[in-house]
Amino acid sequence: MSAHQDPQVGIVMGSDSDWPTMEAAAQALAEFDVPVEVDVVSAHRMPTEMITYGRTAHERGLRTIIAGAGGAAHLPGMLAAVTPLPVIGVPVPLRHLDGMDSLLSIVQMPAGVPVATVSIGGARNAGLLAARILAAGTDDAARDLRERMLSFQADLAEVAHAKGE
Amino acid sequence: MSAHQDPQVGIVMGSDSDWPTMEAAAQALAEFDVPVEVDVVSAHRMPTEMITYGRTAHERGLRTIIAGAGGAAHLPGMLAAVTPLPVIGVPVPLRHLDGMDSLLSIVQMPAGVPVATVSIGGARNAGLLAARILAAGTDDAARDLRERMLSFQADLAEVAHAKGE
Amino acid sequence: MSAHQDPQVGIVMGSDSDWPTMEAAAQALAEFDVPVEVDVVSAHRMPTEMITYGRTAHERGLRTIIAGAGGAAHLPGMLAAVTPLPVIGVPVPLRHLDGMDSLLSIVQMPAGVPVATVSIGGARNAGLLAARILAAGTDDAARDLRERMLSFQADLAEVAHAKGE
Amino acid sequence: MSAHQDPQVGIVMGSDSDWPTMEAAAQALAEFDVPVEVDVVSAHRMPTEMITYGRTAHERGLRTIIAGAGGAAHLPGMLAAVTPLPVIGVPVPLRHLDGMDSLLSIVQMPAGVPVATVSIGGARNAGLLAARILAAGTDDAARDLRERMLSFQADLAEVAHAKGE
Amino acid sequence: MSAHQDPQVGIVMGSDSDWPTMEAAAQALAEFDVPVEVDVVSAHRMPTEMITYGRTAHERGLRTIIAGAGGAAHLPGMLAAVTPLPVIGVPVPLRHLDGMDSLLSIVQMPAGVPVATVSIGGARNAGLLAARILAAGTDDAARDLRERMLSFQADLAEVAHAKGE
Amino acid sequence: MSAHQDPQVGIVMGSDSDWPTMEAAAQALAEFDVPVEVDVVSAHRMPTEMITYGRTAHERGLRTIIAGAGGAAHLPGMLAAVTPLPVIGVPVPLRHLDGMDSLLSIVQMPAGVPVATVSIGGARNAGLLAARILAAGTDDAARDLRERMLSFQADLAEVAHAKGE
Amino acid sequence: MSAHQDPQVGIVMGSDSDWPTMEAAAQALAEFDVPVEVDVVSAHRMPTEMITYGRTAHERGLRTIIAGAGGAAHLPGMLAAVTPLPVIGVPVPLRHLDGMDSLLSIVQMPAGVPVATVSIGGARNAGLLAARILAAGTDDAARDLRERMLSFQADLAEVAHAKGE
Amino acid sequence: MSAHQDPQVGIVMGSDSDWPTMEAAAQALAEFDVPVEVDVVSAHRMPTEMITYGRTAHERGLRTIIAGAGGAAHLPGMLAAVTPLPVIGVPVPLRHLDGMDSLLSIVQMPAGVPVATVSIGGARNAGLLAARILAAGTDDAARDLRERMLSFQADLAEVAHAKGE
Repeated sequence: MSAHQDPQVGIVMGSDSDWPTMEAAAQALAEFDVPVEVDVVSAHRMPTEMITYGRTAHERGLRTIIAGAGGAAHLPGMLAAVTPLPVIGVPVPLRHLDGMDSLLSIVQMPAGVPVATVSIGGARNAGLLAARILAAGTDDAARDLRERMLSFQADLAEVAHAKGE
Repeated sequence: MSAHQDPQVGIVMGSDSDWPTMEAAAQALAEFDVPVEVDVVSAHRMPTEMITYGRTAHERGLRTIIAGAGGAAHLPGMLAAVTPLPVIGVPVPLRHLDGMDSLLSIVQMPAGVPVATVSIGGARNAGLLAARILAAGTDDAARDLRERMLSFQADLAEVAHAKGE
Repeated sequence: MSAHQDPQVGIVMGSDSDWPTMEAAAQALAEFDVPVEVDVVSAHRMPTEMITYGRTAHERGLRTIIAGAGGAAHLPGMLAAVTPLPVIGVPVPLRHLDGMDSLLSIVQMPAGVPVATVSIGGARNAGLLAARILAAGTDDAARDLRERMLSFQADLAEVAHAKGE
Repeated sequence: MSAHQDPQVGIVMGSDSDWPTMEAAAQALAEFDVPVEVDVVSAHRMPTEMITYGRTAHERGLRTIIAGAGGAAHLPGMLAAVTPLPVIGVPVPLRHLDGMDSLLSIVQMPAGVPVATVSIGGARNAGLLAARILAAGTDDAARDLRERMLSFQADLAEVAHAKGE
Repeated sequence: MSAHQDPQVGIVMGSDSDWPTMEAAAQALAEFDVPVEVDVVSAHRMPTEMITYGRTAHERGLRTIIAGAGGAAHLPGMLAAVTPLPVIGVPVPLRHLDGMDSLLSIVQMPAGVPVATVSIGGARNAGLLAARILAAGTDDAARDLRERMLSFQADLAEVAHAKGE
Repeated sequence: MSAHQDPQVGIVMGSDSDWPTMEAAAQALAEFDVPVEVDVVSAHRMPTEMITYGRTAHERGLRTIIAGAGGAAHLPGMLAAVTPLPVIGVPVPLRHLDGMDSLLSIVQMPAGVPVATVSIGGARNAGLLAARILAAGTDDAARDLRERMLSFQADLAEVAHAKGE
Repeated sequence: MSAHQDPQVGIVMGSDSDWPTMEAAAQALAEFDVPVEVDVVSAHRMPTEMITYGRTAHERGLRTIIAGAGGAAHLPGMLAAVTPLPVIGVPVPLRHLDGMDSLLSIVQMPAGVPVATVSIGGARNAGLLAARILAAGTDDAARDLRERMLSFQADLAEVAHAKGE
Repeated sequence: MSAHQDPQVGIVMGSDSDWPTMEAAAQALAEFDVPVEVDVVSAHRMPTEMITYGRTAHERGLRTIIAGAGGAAHLPGMLAAVTPLPVIGVPVPLRHLDGMDSLLSIVQMPAGVPVATVSIGGARNAGLLAARILAAGTDDAARDLRERMLSFQADLAEVAHAKGE
């Protein structure tokens, strides 16, 4: 899985079984033409690679990381511990507890190491949040992205409005 | 409550009773010399002002909003609905349910309108997340901020390490 | 979706996907010949229209609002913030957490802005509660409605009793 | 406990130990000059009187009932079963479970018998909701009350706004 | 639904939709040849009959009541309020919350009015508990029943043991 | 701890630290002049004695057992496994989780082995339930006890009623 | 169910209906060539055999016990009370509550009697934990097993890594 | 903090503020004369040291690791990912949620990486579990330790028994 331009957002997940959930993050960023890279990086099964991934992410040009994980979901928090980039955590619901364990394992981080948590299974919002983060920059690309986000929000309203007619 | 430079982060809360919790967000950003503005903006008691605050935030130069709220905590989500900026939500624990209601009301946003949720009472992390978001930019200020974030993380390790001796 | 007489109750929901749940509210009010209007009004996707809807509801002759929403369910509370009418909130269960997030996001409102919350998925009861509210009035129509509510309750007993035979 | 005018709202609770919580309902209604009656009516300890209270409430001129109860909180639902009036339930938090048992026992009513549930310990909102219900009527008193509710909401905004200065 | 001998245990439920759950109570008692009566008695839809049922139960010769209910499950507690007999409550799981609301609404009774609560959906155990209660008597029938309960327990062990071979 | 007459109810608990909670069971039974025996019998620290206690309880003349335990509360269920007597379980709240773990560990028993569970910390109701069980017998003592239970309930109503005056 | 060599780990469960869950423990140990014995040993249906099983386990050469149970899951804790061996508890999810009751009933053990609890339905991890425990020994077999565990972990990383390519 | 002999158990925690909870693990092992080492090793603040600690633990002669952590408690799971040793996780309760977040973050580990979880705040049991693990070995020291564990359990029974007299 890759993208032609230099990726700005890294989308990682603990297992490829998380992809059906996480795909929506990639799709949301594609709608905004934000180039991404997608990887399986497991905190528990390949901890060294995971830490290397996090430590080098900003050096490789990534500006935000989206990490999905389920159960005792340690990936987002561990990446947040080793990168200065904003890390967005997606609680992936597994077979039991409906994602509540994933949510608490991701959101209840100790002071010093924030993870920007979205809703259970909320990968699309993770992508949109990454787009907002890039749009919070000061260059022209950010300004363009912010305009597109405003259009996107106007469209949301339009569609919702149409449903009420 | 204000700051001399043009504020880059808006910190808002539904009630001034949330200030003891939210103060830590302002303090974290002060450690990174990020100028902030602080306001009481209630989704439920002054909805029009709240929407105006959100709609104009990026026009006034804000680049990220931190919103704290408790119980049926609607402020972060409503602001996220009317601004293209990243919105960070802080679940403020109230008298009952220990912040679980605040957490779910903030994090479980519908697709299209993300809120970057931090831990219950995690205002310090909200401030640090805002700093990471500003540091994800492409200009010199962002680069400087990113360096400071790396130093900050090194210091965290140092202090933690010292405690183990 | 509309009704021939001047509507007395407004039934709104954040998305047309809530209609299978919310339909039961309209049906309950139809049993009592209470004219309703039904709309999709999203707090998160069309916040301005939502606020306008709430602000003008009593001016347009509505006497009660029923609002259904799921997840971080902000619609009932936001409408309650901008209308003097009683607002009935229906927690719509979504894919995860079985409606517990919806329930807490609707019921845990701060002092000053009440939402009359019914059970998870309890749209039929929302309709019946609206009928009781109209029946609490002082005019002849209210008196008639109250009589019909008493008959309805007698019928409930009758049917339940018959099942026990 | 009583009131000089014909009471329009009955405030009942299962035990006088609930009064410190429930008092706020009476106070809210006093702010709107709505005459109330206050009683201890236990579903579990005086079921016959409870049912009589409910059955006769509308005949005695009451137009809304506010019922507070904790734990396996049956009072609001049982009253709703025997009166055609709107019944507002206040989950009173007891020593364990922080009111979650009270909330679920009140809000999860079966189809046919609605209870308008407010937040855990939310007796003030129960009073305000009762005022809104009376204000949903068609006579002059209702119109006056609606005007006062609008002023009340404007005041809320004013006070909240002032705190942000 | 009835039984030839004078029934000793009354099995009641709020709705005939609870029968698939509650049937196991009747079956367990049939295994011990304890005559039962089965009725639909709804706390919310036929409160007067419910109270009459409870008040007269011991006069009609019943010695224990088993009551199943779901959601805001008031039937076991209300019966316990009006009978001196032991009341066994069965939390019936409904469509949402997996019976947790039913469990808390039944078990969290106030001091003075006990309900003997069994597991969610645990109607078979409710029947067995009723048999143990009858077996706690002092007459010959009780002694016989106690012997049969000991045999039943020995059989349980036998069957479980056989599975391990 | 003992009683002069032949005890009819055994009150046991896993640790003497449960006594402040469990004392209310003994007190309730004392109000009905039911002789009890009280013991510390730990499922986890003295399993053999616990099983002997359970196995011999009915032989020693006990007719009901009340068992209090907290956390992974195994005492009531293990006693129920080895006695034909009705076992009443009292979930004792410990330092964390407010008794929810105790409640689930006691009430969620498998089919075949019922425990009559009362509310978290509800030892007084456990005592009253034991009295009702004894009162469900067929001899004169049971009849007397049933009469006293009816008086007790009338008194409850009286006291509750007086509070409402 | 048995094994040719002297078993080192005993795998027990309350009912053969737990086998589909527990099978993964046996399989994991088979991958490490650890001989096991598998039995149905019910705390509630065959308490004496259960206690005998536990008391004699270390005498029969077992070095670790894995116990799976659901609902009010008493088997792991009761075995831990009667054996000096490490006991690993597997919360088996039953029909309701998604294993949360099983988890709390197993993990919340009182001081003095530890159970090594794994995730809900986590029998494979129970097997791997048993292998780690055996590998913590001081003899050659332990050293070999530790090497194999290191290989196993390297393989996990390999497979996870391959998925990310 | 250290010990004279070669430590066999490593006790680590994310912050020295966890020491009041974790101290009981050290104390339990001291009662069994098991030499331990105690360290602050934070998964989030010093991830590299944490991984080094885990990777080298068995090489340094440790045979079991006890790790305490609170909130999004990643330390036990991350250590389990990099060591072949058994890792015991202690959920430390923090200011909110009473340790439920800590418990789920520790126990809900993915297949392949087990953590032996004890109760919320259950550090004493973590120590006792470590002792049982060492006692599961095959050498004389293990046999001695197992004997002492049996004595310890006999003492527990003795003390519990004495309290019941």
